[in-house]
Amino acid sequence: MAAKSRKPDDEALIRALIDDVTNAIRAKDAGGVAKHHADDFVHFSLAPPLRAAADPKALDAWFATWRGTISYETRDLSIVAGNDVAFCHSLNHMSGVMTDGEQTDLWFRLTLGLRKVGGAWKIVHEHESVPFYMDGSMKAATDLKP
Amino acid sequence: MAAKSRKPDDEALIRALIDDVTNAIRAKDAGGVAKHHADDFVHFSLAPPLRAAADPKALDAWFATWRGTISYETRDLSIVAGNDVAFCHSLNHMSGVMTDGEQTDLWFRLTLGLRKVGGAWKIVHEHESVPFYMDGSMKAATDLKP
Repeated sequence: MAAKSRKPDDEALIRALIDDVTNAIRAKDAGGVAKHHADDFVHFSLAPPLRAAADPKALDAWFATWRGTISYETRDLSIVAGNDVAFCHSLNHMSGVMTDGEQTDLWFRLTLGLRKVGGAWKIVHEHESVPFYMDGSMKAATDLKP
Repeated sequence: MAAKSRKPDDEALIRALIDDVTNAIRAKDAGGVAKHHADDFVHFSLAPPLRAAADPKALDAWFATWRGTISYETRDLSIVAGNDVAFCHSLNHMSGVMTDGEQTDLWFRLTLGLRKVGGAWKIVHEHESVPFYMDGSMKAATDLKP
């Protein structure tokens, strides 16, 4: 892990960025998430389409489907940081109650690609997913746990 | 895209690595894929579990479920390369005939995290997925096209 040990400051900065995004998601603050995205942010989201640009309005609309705050945690975060390019991956857990009363409880995989822009780390790319069962059902594997 | 324009050689090296992996997949050569993986490779695959280590035997077994060669192409590849850390993302298309005669034709999202190890780029992390329909069916969105 040479790249990691050489860059403790950048790793700490990225960890702080992720903590800030986590708190913004818990508080359903779309602007607090979007401010960490680069202008050319590319999103591979849990929901279709295959690829999307940054869309704070869509994030706001999605936050509005949750009743109260969202419970959100990051596990097994691995950060690989160079001088001005970095990526990280983790297993993330999101749970809470939707406005229709349904309980959501989901573990998913998260990968971030980051670039230092004007001295600050920005998220250029985000990829969130669950795998799917290749057994004929083709269902999303929303019941997995780490 | 400062990081990209400063590193044309590294971007070309990563592009060549991806071409080599592509050819290995088309030829169903598990060793030809695995040689590009770092020792601590972490895989977020299309199929469960959430996370896996490198497993050339599992890749070999999966290749054996295809009849003949696999048709495989990469579209909209974006590479962000620093001195020793890089990531890239693309939309990938895989098609062919399985041994049971079933036709497979799938577009998925691919994100790679890379690190330079001993002067050579290695894939440290790979994340492949399709999104899923959040409409109650919870089906994997295997019918999307870019």
